[in-house]
Amino acid sequence: MRTLRIAAAQLGPIARDEPRSEVVARLIDLLHGAAEAGCQLVVFPELALTTFFPRWHLDDGEGDEITGDLTELDSYYETSMPNAVTQPLFDEAQRLGVGFSLGYAEMTSDGRRFNTTILVERDGSVVGHYRKVHIPGHETHEPEREFQHLERRYFEESQEGFGVYSAFGGVVGMATCNDRRWPETYRVMGLQGVELIMIGYNTPIYYAPDPGQNLLQGFHNHLVMQAGAYQNGTWVVGVAKGGTEEGVESLAQSAIIAPSGQIAAQAVTTGDELVIATCDLDWCKQYKETLFDFDRYRRPEMYGLITSRKGAISP
Amino acid sequence: MRTLRIAAAQLGPIARDEPRSEVVARLIDLLHGAAEAGCQLVVFPELALTTFFPRWHLDDGEGDEITGDLTELDSYYETSMPNAVTQPLFDEAQRLGVGFSLGYAEMTSDGRRFNTTILVERDGSVVGHYRKVHIPGHETHEPEREFQHLERRYFEESQEGFGVYSAFGGVVGMATCNDRRWPETYRVMGLQGVELIMIGYNTPIYYAPDPGQNLLQGFHNHLVMQAGAYQNGTWVVGVAKGGTEEGVESLAQSAIIAPSGQIAAQAVTTGDELVIATCDLDWCKQYKETLFDFDRYRRPEMYGLITSRKGAISP
Repeated sequence: MRTLRIAAAQLGPIARDEPRSEVVARLIDLLHGAAEAGCQLVVFPELALTTFFPRWHLDDGEGDEITGDLTELDSYYETSMPNAVTQPLFDEAQRLGVGFSLGYAEMTSDGRRFNTTILVERDGSVVGHYRKVHIPGHETHEPEREFQHLERRYFEESQEGFGVYSAFGGVVGMATCNDRRWPETYRVMGLQGVELIMIGYNTPIYYAPDPGQNLLQGFHNHLVMQAGAYQNGTWVVGVAKGGTEEGVESLAQSAIIAPSGQIAAQAVTTGDELVIATCDLDWCKQYKETLFDFDRYRRPEMYGLITSRKGAISP
Repeated sequence: MRTLRIAAAQLGPIARDEPRSEVVARLIDLLHGAAEAGCQLVVFPELALTTFFPRWHLDDGEGDEITGDLTELDSYYETSMPNAVTQPLFDEAQRLGVGFSLGYAEMTSDGRRFNTTILVERDGSVVGHYRKVHIPGHETHEPEREFQHLERRYFEESQEGFGVYSAFGGVVGMATCNDRRWPETYRVMGLQGVELIMIGYNTPIYYAPDPGQNLLQGFHNHLVMQAGAYQNGTWVVGVAKGGTEEGVESLAQSAIIAPSGQIAAQAVTTGDELVIATCDLDWCKQYKETLFDFDRYRRPEMYGLITSRKGAISP
């Protein structure tokens, strides 16, 4: 048994004018609740410090270029982590001996923009960073939409991919929101022996390109994470920023999923809520060493198209 | 709308001593039912002509070599398809204008053994063959097991992989049993624009390497096919040989799954049963051209390990 007690710290909405200091206070409240419940790791959502700003076209640029008065847009990015406003969270986590992952918008010193998650160990040391690989949405303002999904405008794609880390007594990795819909996300980490994948997400219920999918959002959310967990014999923690934020309803449904694919615990509200489970990392072996013994059963020589081809080509 | 009315023709048990002619009569009964219900395509299970013989150690060989009196073992393989005993099924399907896929054990002229499926168009022409890629089970007799799963002894792995075909008004492909648990199966066909995947299976409920999975067999069966359908925007038809065959209980639960991942129709018995749905192949576009627009959103340069590495290597 290598048990790790984990909290998925779901967040309700964050208002456009809500100061980061108030958000950090909410995160610290959740951290305290998790520590009191005996957790060693708290998983916070994607872009957990601000409202989900890709829903607005905030610059004056046309095409791919971001130009104009960037005062509000740039205000959503962090130029360092930790920084003055998040330091109390880092300090309190270290004091409590609780590790955490935290999603935020990153602005690098050379002005590059990423959708990033930081992972911090129980002793306060930084384990690593993950930058989102699969960026959904669109690149340019689409005024016909009721709200935008401009992630492809405001974030660059990761060039580092899906690393894993030896931390928290096991092998852990991260993914972000749309990444969870792609089986390659889980598999690349599965091939590195991952035992726990932390996934934060912001998922609007309304999907403009095909509103027929709206009612299936909850089903799809669990389907992809449960399949990814089972097919790789890994724990998956999916944690939402949910609820109705600035008029846009987002999926909540945070869940901790076992290597069997079963949901071990899940959120019952759409607001700030802790979802807690005791996760035995050794249980991954029940799948990694039987049905999904990759070395015995996989056929990579038959999978060539997965890496050689990007888009689908019909015969 | 490109609608295709499909029947998953689930089979109940086939006894060890049941003559193939009787099995073919059952297949023809199902074919008639499907034709009466207006179907254009009938999907039969894996190894649909005989009992699931990999549950017995039938040769005298040790290690990987198959030796000794092979009278019974070899009797389960087809050396040509169609052949005298299956010709009535082919003839009747052609007469009715109904296409079908049919799984069987194939013995090539040079003595190679494959777990094969043949696909036949409505006019009786052979569209193609699929040989199983992911062979589960074990290579040598394991006497401590209550029953064997000697597929890795009795079948070679395919060297051809997952092709797709322009047939039945769309792009179609095949997979077999254990293949359905591997996301690569669906993805390789998804990258070829597949709109319909036909999957036959024989799945014993009892899984000797980890009986803790027994009660999850039904959940896992649907989970992997639903995820594969959704993540590739394709119809999936999963069809079982189910029920208690020669004392071994097998999963039934045949299903027709939409590109949304939803189960459109499913079996309610464990015996011979038709599961029927009208499948609009154009509906695949709702996923292939939005969320899963591969050309826009995939990141193959981040997926290298999937083809460069077979087994998992932890950091």
